[in-house]
Amino acid sequence: MAMAQKIFIVNTGSASKKYALYGDGEREFYAHFEKENGGFIVNFVKGEAREKRAVSDSDYAGATLYAIKKMTDEGLIGGAGDITAIGLRIVAPGEYFTENRPVDAEFSKRLDEAKEWAPLHAISIISEIENLGAALPGVPIFAVSDSAYHSAMPSHSRYYGLPLDDAEKFGVVRFGYHGISFKSVLPKLESLSRVSADKAIFCHLGSGSSIMALKDGKSFDTSMGFSPLEGVPMSTRVGDIDAGAVVYLEKKSGFSPEEAENYFNSRCGLLGLSGKTGDVRELLNLEAAGDERAALALEIFVYKIKKYIGSYFAALGGADVLIFSGTIGERSPIIRSRICRGLESLGIVIDGERNNGVQSADGFIHHETDSPVKIAVIVSDEMGQMASETALALRSAAGGL
Amino acid sequence: MAMAQKIFIVNTGSASKKYALYGDGEREFYAHFEKENGGFIVNFVKGEAREKRAVSDSDYAGATLYAIKKMTDEGLIGGAGDITAIGLRIVAPGEYFTENRPVDAEFSKRLDEAKEWAPLHAISIISEIENLGAALPGVPIFAVSDSAYHSAMPSHSRYYGLPLDDAEKFGVVRFGYHGISFKSVLPKLESLSRVSADKAIFCHLGSGSSIMALKDGKSFDTSMGFSPLEGVPMSTRVGDIDAGAVVYLEKKSGFSPEEAENYFNSRCGLLGLSGKTGDVRELLNLEAAGDERAALALEIFVYKIKKYIGSYFAALGGADVLIFSGTIGERSPIIRSRICRGLESLGIVIDGERNNGVQSADGFIHHETDSPVKIAVIVSDEMGQMASETALALRSAAGGL
Repeated sequence: MAMAQKIFIVNTGSASKKYALYGDGEREFYAHFEKENGGFIVNFVKGEAREKRAVSDSDYAGATLYAIKKMTDEGLIGGAGDITAIGLRIVAPGEYFTENRPVDAEFSKRLDEAKEWAPLHAISIISEIENLGAALPGVPIFAVSDSAYHSAMPSHSRYYGLPLDDAEKFGVVRFGYHGISFKSVLPKLESLSRVSADKAIFCHLGSGSSIMALKDGKSFDTSMGFSPLEGVPMSTRVGDIDAGAVVYLEKKSGFSPEEAENYFNSRCGLLGLSGKTGDVRELLNLEAAGDERAALALEIFVYKIKKYIGSYFAALGGADVLIFSGTIGERSPIIRSRICRGLESLGIVIDGERNNGVQSADGFIHHETDSPVKIAVIVSDEMGQMASETALALRSAAGGL
Repeated sequence: MAMAQKIFIVNTGSASKKYALYGDGEREFYAHFEKENGGFIVNFVKGEAREKRAVSDSDYAGATLYAIKKMTDEGLIGGAGDITAIGLRIVAPGEYFTENRPVDAEFSKRLDEAKEWAPLHAISIISEIENLGAALPGVPIFAVSDSAYHSAMPSHSRYYGLPLDDAEKFGVVRFGYHGISFKSVLPKLESLSRVSADKAIFCHLGSGSSIMALKDGKSFDTSMGFSPLEGVPMSTRVGDIDAGAVVYLEKKSGFSPEEAENYFNSRCGLLGLSGKTGDVRELLNLEAAGDERAALALEIFVYKIKKYIGSYFAALGGADVLIFSGTIGERSPIIRSRICRGLESLGIVIDGERNNGVQSADGFIHHETDSPVKIAVIVSDEMGQMASETALALRSAAGGL
């Protein structure tokens, strides 16, 4: 008797942790841990049922175990034996991590090496793998690469202005991230657009943000590079900054490289600019209450996104469609409106009413007649995409027997 | 009896050293030291007379004294007493250095402080001031700031995604450079353009390169930031690079901050990418001979410039005119042509014939009927601009007595 294939998806980021259980491709369970009002909460979804709970700091730290216990309590799984495979999102600089791979001894060795040079990303993945090994012993883990989509970017987008030998020897090239998000959007874009999408600009705006240029469905360029620090300033990440400023800040602050990495990842961006929060919703409230630094943080965020859109418009030689996705891109008409304001010279004209009508849903928001460039909001589904890719890996592995 | 006002201009950069003597506003003498075929040469210009000489490495190192001796030998000056003032170009990060100022005790103190944190720029200026003090004792020196033009850039262009308190405390903001070059071009643009130049994009392309967005004649944004490392990859400077990649490279290479600063300034950019040279003319020859790395270096250079043009087009909400200047911008139709290729969707259409006809001269090169955006080549004159600003400083000082 064929058992249902159950895939457990783990997606832990800088500002939230997401878990999902897929049974034969259908989502059976979802848990989303995030910050709220200075504490932590979790939202559970099981079928139509929703439940929101406050959780302690230590529950957030051990969110993986918390989510597995909840699935067990709900009778979705009896034990590790009921789970076919785990899909784990990997965000890590390095050529090795640009492919989906089984997490095996070689993988762990590579992570250990990466820890020495880029500790922040590697440490969180290592700890996640350890937690999963303890809670679900014997269940195979597949690493789903967030960079895979960008691995064939053209050379002009891949290289920094570094000595080419050093770039290759040290692996310091532009990897790009948020590829899983875009891959989840691509089929919907194709069915939704009914127009050419040969040249597309994709804005994944969340606590981490990427802007991407897509040509014929392939990655042409993207704002995140070697690490997820590059590009627009993010919730707590610095975004683009002069190499001279990095070196100067390290000297002036007496930062070790580890402290510098931590600083640029967790104390900068919208949080650092505003001095209060890295959350765009909270920044909009603060701005409305007259907070000038919140307004400045939002202004810089929007300005940098506009510039990336313009740069990719030039790089692609025009654009057929501009896509907003990610929590901010999907939910915030005001941010979308500010980004598009002033881009009329690129043929990007937003329709205020349509824009306000699309929140956490798919839809077009450009002006029907005045906007040569279509503007779409498309809800991305990283978890579902990871489940598909994990199922595909299982089929390939089975086929290979 | 009124003596002629003689102003000696000193402009020493990473790849060349330029000197000029102005008598009552007219250039009487010009000396340009630069690399050629692995050695150094100097070109002297006095009236209609031109002279080119090979010089030794030590003559290049002591170019200031060499130029002063030549002026003396030519009978242009008898001694220090014949020089009214010296104008010295200042490229240094720091709010203090964003204004034209007399070089006095306070200035030297500030430079000494800057040396500790950003040694490369400060050390070369300090040594220049020492040489000038020894060779021309008692002659007042005016520091002409290359950042002054950008000092009122809007906040969205001034700040990185750093904690605002740190940005202000440490002075890590975007200062921008090549302002002297643009100021020298602005009057010619106004007389040449006979069209609106409210929104202009200025490409200063030389061994150092800046792209600037100008709105109503004021600096709106620019690609160089805190230091002259940021922006497009340059002859030997890295250009834009992920903060994570900087920190990673420092760890991986065991660089001290000084070594890192030196590496990113002098071993990267076109030189690092090609592995052979940072000179665009030489790269074009290598490319024609089939050198793939030379071709890649040029491709990345052109691609990044296109992206900056697009980003400023978006930031300005369109552009009236695109201006090429600097040695590459003024002299290289092929580079201008490659930059403009594919920018037709921005309304930027180059005219091949006009483009080929404009070298080291001012002129329009856009397609007369098909290009909504005008494209101009304008020869910049940093030396003349510095002489005017130094003369202005002398008048202000005299008026203040």
